[in-house]
Amino acid sequence: MKDLLVRLAARVQQAVSDYRDDFGERISIGAYGVPTSAIDLVAERAALDELEKTGERLNVLSEEAGFIDRGGEMTIVLDPVDGTRNAARGFPAYSTSMAIGRKSMDDTEFGLVRDLVSGRTYFASKGRGAFLDDRRIRIREFDARDTVFSIYLGTNANQESLELARRARRVRNLGAASLDMCLVATGAADLYYMNSNAKNAELRVVDIAASALILREAGGEVVSLDRRRLNMPYDSKTRSNLIAYGDPKALELVP
Amino acid sequence: MKDLLVRLAARVQQAVSDYRDDFGERISIGAYGVPTSAIDLVAERAALDELEKTGERLNVLSEEAGFIDRGGEMTIVLDPVDGTRNAARGFPAYSTSMAIGRKSMDDTEFGLVRDLVSGRTYFASKGRGAFLDDRRIRIREFDARDTVFSIYLGTNANQESLELARRARRVRNLGAASLDMCLVATGAADLYYMNSNAKNAELRVVDIAASALILREAGGEVVSLDRRRLNMPYDSKTRSNLIAYGDPKALELVP
Repeated sequence: MKDLLVRLAARVQQAVSDYRDDFGERISIGAYGVPTSAIDLVAERAALDELEKTGERLNVLSEEAGFIDRGGEMTIVLDPVDGTRNAARGFPAYSTSMAIGRKSMDDTEFGLVRDLVSGRTYFASKGRGAFLDDRRIRIREFDARDTVFSIYLGTNANQESLELARRARRVRNLGAASLDMCLVATGAADLYYMNSNAKNAELRVVDIAASALILREAGGEVVSLDRRRLNMPYDSKTRSNLIAYGDPKALELVP
Repeated sequence: MKDLLVRLAARVQQAVSDYRDDFGERISIGAYGVPTSAIDLVAERAALDELEKTGERLNVLSEEAGFIDRGGEMTIVLDPVDGTRNAARGFPAYSTSMAIGRKSMDDTEFGLVRDLVSGRTYFASKGRGAFLDDRRIRIREFDARDTVFSIYLGTNANQESLELARRARRVRNLGAASLDMCLVATGAADLYYMNSNAKNAELRVVDIAASALILREAGGEVVSLDRRRLNMPYDSKTRSNLIAYGDPKALELVP
């Protein structure tokens, strides 16, 4: 299945590169009711066409198309472009995110996130570890003097987010959840905190199925705001805020 | 001079790529008294060696080496690796920043910032516009519904930074000033706000001489916190907080 995901991601990368010239110019509404630019549709079409060519009988849950029953036992959960807003404005942080499993995050078997700007690829298969471009990755041991937190901020962020931003030595944010979570998996960040007031800004399983597996296989964890292990069903509706962390000591700083 | 800067930046990129395997392992103290990893020294050595080969008689002001009088009329102002902390942790945002001028930011003639992760190159020459990989760039017209602010946050950030983070629709931060400023130049961000309590976290001319020219040539401006046009001398000591913006309407949101 790794070869399949790598092949689909490479095809998406190609489609996005080809399309780049009129990025984000046309806006439409995706299956989730969020505004999406044509780049999402182009990327999704590329992935689905490529999947068809492989002959693999996988169902599809995708950001734009929703659920497509292709008579498979397994489902590929797909966010063709995570960070569409970044892509539309030319902010260099957007990715394609793909996972394969059955019913929910917890039974996800494979996850791949490809950074569409740098081409770096994060991959994990359940029980076999996480990798960045074939190099094993691990979360970072907590060091209170050198904390880097990725925090979702702005008009939709909850007050706790600002409090957390005071506590981190350094704050970063890419604005693409799959990438922000993969950076926790590599130890580039200690924690990713997403706490939005706006329900439609919360994350969906298509955004995080892949990166959650990658982070867990790298030694980290993803929990809801009440600190329960996060498990979202493979559907189009469920949304959640979350905290993704490497070393649990980082979690103790969260308000 | 553009060819010279492109050549030096390519050489730095090569040196950093070659060195990547033991990134940030050895720590020493640079001319500015900040901890710097060996990657800075390797990158600076690569740039200075390459400059020597070109035969150009330029003085040098560099992060590690300080000022080197090479009998020239012009000085190259160099931050071999901006975002060393990111590089050391594997956070994919660091760059090389190079400018050529005489005495201060205001007489800077050429500026180049190369993103060392993606290889993208920002360039400006005074009076002739700003470019990303040879494509003209311009700041973005302000749209209150779609604001993206890059804000320096964390334990050293001033309280105003948190207030500003509540006002932006979205907040991003790469933690490499030259890149954060170039993203204002392309319109990816509306504003970059750097307001640190810690004097040794404030920015130096080596960090921003190039990106300030790039932003100004793209139609933006860089000011101190009291809203005066920022002009720093080419020296090793001066530090400043700053606000970099595209459309002046973005500045009205700053506390």
